[in-house]
Amino acid sequence: MASPAPWVEEALAGSVRALAKLITLVENEMPGSTEALRALYPKTGRGYTIGITGPPGSGKSTLTDKITKELRKRNFTVGIVAVDPTSPFSGGALLGDRLRMQDIAGDEGVFVRSMATRGALGGLSKATADTIKILDAFGKDFILIETVGVGQDEVDIVRTADCTLLISVPGLGDEIQALKAGIMEIGDLFVVNKADREGADRLVTELSLMLDLSPPTGGWRPRIVKTVGTLGTGIPELVENVFEHRRFLEAGDGLRKKRSERTREEIIRLIEQEISKYVHKMLKYDLNFEEVIDQVVARRQDPYSYARKVTEPFAQYYQIYKVDKGKPPA
Amino acid sequence: MASPAPWVEEALAGSVRALAKLITLVENEMPGSTEALRALYPKTGRGYTIGITGPPGSGKSTLTDKITKELRKRNFTVGIVAVDPTSPFSGGALLGDRLRMQDIAGDEGVFVRSMATRGALGGLSKATADTIKILDAFGKDFILIETVGVGQDEVDIVRTADCTLLISVPGLGDEIQALKAGIMEIGDLFVVNKADREGADRLVTELSLMLDLSPPTGGWRPRIVKTVGTLGTGIPELVENVFEHRRFLEAGDGLRKKRSERTREEIIRLIEQEISKYVHKMLKYDLNFEEVIDQVVARRQDPYSYARKVTEPFAQYYQIYKVDKGKPPA
Repeated sequence: MASPAPWVEEALAGSVRALAKLITLVENEMPGSTEALRALYPKTGRGYTIGITGPPGSGKSTLTDKITKELRKRNFTVGIVAVDPTSPFSGGALLGDRLRMQDIAGDEGVFVRSMATRGALGGLSKATADTIKILDAFGKDFILIETVGVGQDEVDIVRTADCTLLISVPGLGDEIQALKAGIMEIGDLFVVNKADREGADRLVTELSLMLDLSPPTGGWRPRIVKTVGTLGTGIPELVENVFEHRRFLEAGDGLRKKRSERTREEIIRLIEQEISKYVHKMLKYDLNFEEVIDQVVARRQDPYSYARKVTEPFAQYYQIYKVDKGKPPA
Repeated sequence: MASPAPWVEEALAGSVRALAKLITLVENEMPGSTEALRALYPKTGRGYTIGITGPPGSGKSTLTDKITKELRKRNFTVGIVAVDPTSPFSGGALLGDRLRMQDIAGDEGVFVRSMATRGALGGLSKATADTIKILDAFGKDFILIETVGVGQDEVDIVRTADCTLLISVPGLGDEIQALKAGIMEIGDLFVVNKADREGADRLVTELSLMLDLSPPTGGWRPRIVKTVGTLGTGIPELVENVFEHRRFLEAGDGLRKKRSERTREEIIRLIEQEISKYVHKMLKYDLNFEEVIDQVVARRQDPYSYARKVTEPFAQYYQIYKVDKGKPPA
């Protein structure tokens, strides 16, 4: 009899081909994917995740590659997840992979995966989180998550990394450049890339002033590092700063807290996705959903009342659950 | 006794102040917001929505303003929803509003609202959809939704418009520029803005070739319009094209189909949000969620099995529902 997730054992035994197939299986939520993730889960938790985000044109891919090379020099293995939201303007996955091919392909210590999946409810975040776990279980010491920092999904993805690098560059113009106070908080390290351009020092000063205004989270004052990705300038310093931040997190309870938070969000997302599947089935098979849509379009019914009606039994169930604490009803 | 949503009547009677308060109420999901939306819903369906999307720096705000002025010349009222995802790099809302102030503020036929909300599950899309409905009920002839076209949320938002304008500009560089085949399909009109720049004609040719390759959806061959937003060049032609597309949609069943699809997605989202609320309550009050998180972090339990266990009763409920067709159990 075949195992429910045939690629798991082979991947754990070191087969890169099996690893790639496993990720595809999970990314597309094919049969056996949950079983595979369940089997891999106990082997996760060792890899250190680094989120790398910045606006289009800030040189994310190049930086990711250079950081990878620096980590390889120090004998760490690296997995890269390049998140490419299906966006009108990103054009990412193919181009990124092609550029990378020249540089780090052929190095067996590096595994690159581009994510271009769109799913219904948080499809992208789930696929990314799952891929990170697979690479972690596979034994990668560092997992880099590269994503364009525009859009809630993408921000949510990097936000859960152990260390988040916010990249900015001089002279990208106001609309792109202005870092918002609310998002500054997710950055553990601020990278001013293309630092050989005019305005780099001014940008460093501006970032520094903004950081002065926002109180450090968990006691860590984010560092600002200047780099020129294409030349490799500043990369060793950047990696040293990543390590320093890691030591800081591990000395206190920072890492534990970050990972608890990530786990909390993941469990909630898994539950919501499970339920969402039932809702979709219910609408598809049980209710006259097409008729309801027509009625709502014709303004004979409003969507809010309908949503309330359909979820009412869930509400009732919630009441039951509340009384019978902690135990799902038989 | 106060009405559950005090701003509804005043807004419908024409008070702009009440309209603004109503949107704030709904955007923040304050008590009474669902009641307000329910009350407004029968009055919606008359406004025509235009989605305007493009990469940072493509001149979306300027185009939105010029289109607004052109529509005002023709005596139509306009509502503008400027979607500013809480993004590290957009810096949008305030700047956008400030620029607009000089131009179209003071015109009572125009109402501008910047959305910067972040919620849990699809918070941005919900807030935007609700605001569009409010402006629609308020009697705006056209509702323009302006959003940076990067990120799934933002794409989803414009995708549901009656007419979607995809803006590109010559010479923005590959990463930003490359329009993906998959997203070309959401464009009803392609705007080549800043068309006085070098490369504009080449961009038009490239877009035209891409459109030749993708079969027209619903029989509509998307038009390509050249504009120079800052000078107002091409704006009347652009608006004419919007009207032509509208006539096309209304002659067939294109508009009906688009709106059915939008309604379908909205209902599903509403249902998922309702259930999400119960899940959060359940985790907060009933289960030893903190303990579960600790166990999952420690790898003593996996998150997949836990999510399955918690949702199992929903699965059972779904089975009941399936038997007792269409009727929620008493």
